[in-house]
Amino acid sequence: MSPLELGRESAWLSREEIDQARDKVPILYVDLLPVRVDDRGVVTGIGLLLRMTDGRITRELVSGRVLHHERLRDAILRHLEKDLGPMALPRVPPSPQPFTVAEYFPTPGVTPFHDPRQHAVSLAYIVPVAGDCAPQHDALDLAWLTPEEARDPLLLADLDRGHDVLLRQALAHLGFPI
Amino acid sequence: MSPLELGRESAWLSREEIDQARDKVPILYVDLLPVRVDDRGVVTGIGLLLRMTDGRITRELVSGRVLHHERLRDAILRHLEKDLGPMALPRVPPSPQPFTVAEYFPTPGVTPFHDPRQHAVSLAYIVPVAGDCAPQHDALDLAWLTPEEARDPLLLADLDRGHDVLLRQALAHLGFPI
Amino acid sequence: MSPLELGRESAWLSREEIDQARDKVPILYVDLLPVRVDDRGVVTGIGLLLRMTDGRITRELVSGRVLHHERLRDAILRHLEKDLGPMALPRVPPSPQPFTVAEYFPTPGVTPFHDPRQHAVSLAYIVPVAGDCAPQHDALDLAWLTPEEARDPLLLADLDRGHDVLLRQALAHLGFPI
Amino acid sequence: MSPLELGRESAWLSREEIDQARDKVPILYVDLLPVRVDDRGVVTGIGLLLRMTDGRITRELVSGRVLHHERLRDAILRHLEKDLGPMALPRVPPSPQPFTVAEYFPTPGVTPFHDPRQHAVSLAYIVPVAGDCAPQHDALDLAWLTPEEARDPLLLADLDRGHDVLLRQALAHLGFPI
Repeated sequence: MSPLELGRESAWLSREEIDQARDKVPILYVDLLPVRVDDRGVVTGIGLLLRMTDGRITRELVSGRVLHHERLRDAILRHLEKDLGPMALPRVPPSPQPFTVAEYFPTPGVTPFHDPRQHAVSLAYIVPVAGDCAPQHDALDLAWLTPEEARDPLLLADLDRGHDVLLRQALAHLGFPI
Repeated sequence: MSPLELGRESAWLSREEIDQARDKVPILYVDLLPVRVDDRGVVTGIGLLLRMTDGRITRELVSGRVLHHERLRDAILRHLEKDLGPMALPRVPPSPQPFTVAEYFPTPGVTPFHDPRQHAVSLAYIVPVAGDCAPQHDALDLAWLTPEEARDPLLLADLDRGHDVLLRQALAHLGFPI
Repeated sequence: MSPLELGRESAWLSREEIDQARDKVPILYVDLLPVRVDDRGVVTGIGLLLRMTDGRITRELVSGRVLHHERLRDAILRHLEKDLGPMALPRVPPSPQPFTVAEYFPTPGVTPFHDPRQHAVSLAYIVPVAGDCAPQHDALDLAWLTPEEARDPLLLADLDRGHDVLLRQALAHLGFPI
Repeated sequence: MSPLELGRESAWLSREEIDQARDKVPILYVDLLPVRVDDRGVVTGIGLLLRMTDGRITRELVSGRVLHHERLRDAILRHLEKDLGPMALPRVPPSPQPFTVAEYFPTPGVTPFHDPRQHAVSLAYIVPVAGDCAPQHDALDLAWLTPEEARDPLLLADLDRGHDVLLRQALAHLGFPI
């Protein structure tokens, strides 16, 4: 089934049906850190989405649900395309091993990750993107930061739901000081 | 919420309710390879469950669903205890990074993993167990094999659903020839 | 120091000097599996070098020593360029975490890996290459195999020093059946 | 060859001989974070060594060289035993995949890691210890910190050579906020 068909299938599920599943099982997500790399594979830029959330500007990773019957790599591609546009040319990692797994609970404090809507378990990947990125849908903008800028506590305060922790964990996995 | 309470909550979900979730979203699993290790951390034994499935003996990894509101490490403990008994003393890995992620589809051939009941996504971990293991529930027996025995093609043919592939991937991650 | 300068510095070390180091400490290597990937990140081709070794054709991974004062990612680039040519456009992994570490001993059987010249410890990475590859130096040819072809036991018999084991471990890490 | 014999062999190498190797090739190290874990595998304590370095108290990870002809897991055991004593009962990870690789250069600033004596490349592992730890040799003391305490910037300032970065990277790999 192509990502397009999956999008349609998802549209067929009513809000109510999704909510029913959310009440019964953990929901599978992918959390994605889009990065720019140079010729030596060094990360030179980290892409964060800017969104307007409850009248306040927040930053976040690319993130989204894995659909029924959807391959993980198709979910990764679909969410990057949805948020960065169709010309982003993401280089999906060839291995399924995530650099970490984030457990989001509706109750804050159970883990560093929090999602008021649901219990979600998210596989986290770093994805180099080689093309032109244009923020889509409800994202106001996409900001590219250097790895050094991405450690700024003021900036990290703009990330909700524990995405500041996940960003630091990604930087750590990349070998950067944090 | 303790594993016990979660077990109860799960019991409250009717078969019908689980089936409804299975029709809508991928179901999150853990696949676990129980191992014996020596003082140097070398794996000396690999535990496989023997079950009677459709009148034929099959071997399989410890495997099971992550429940709503359950931490991954609690799911790992619960399933090991369920299959190996309460005295197995599993050493749950301190890091959430799985060695691989297995995608099970109801249609055979989409991936090496197959589950006729559902689309399941499983985080795979190797878990040393230090205590006494006693097979529980519907498991006939628990067989400890050396890493060399675990590569035997005849034995691997007894593993269904792609568990033979997952076992080889675990051996590869452990540094053994496969 | 640039890879070019490092090459020169290395040239200054006589064979005797390298042999002296080999007698005292483990020598650090990188083992590299060049792969072709499609737009979804699926590995479609695996590059193996064909060499003439002692009058017999052998296959091997790209492999080589990390030089004094050389960064790991520069060693990865240098060895890929040396064997695949300057137009291979390798995508060096952004994270330093290798998928495995191979320990080569001069005595066969200590580990699955064997190097008659030395005790070497090798960090293993999978590296997508996007450009044109042209075998260089003493390599006869570069053969691209599908992941399925790469599992052929007859072909694996052409890999010396445990590179057959390392190739299978890489396939396992990529999620392929092995 | 047993760790004991290796220790002897190492003793045979004069300071001059080691220095000669240091001038020619990167030296292979292991960096080890000893941890206490509870029954669910949650890290509850992180062990840092206190040393007197140049008249000032510093904290550091367990760290040391891999010897000629020594297996990685034997080097891990030897260094933990050397610093934590013979009753520490370390649980050496069954897989050789390190959580990161740290590159130490004699010139500060090339990477976050710095070693004035040499170019060293270090495989980093988290190692649960189950027994009694007693600091040995030139270590003044071993301090057990909670993961929260280990994030204290004042404490992190006591770690030299980039061990503060490595400690944070280990916490990130364990899933803790950093």
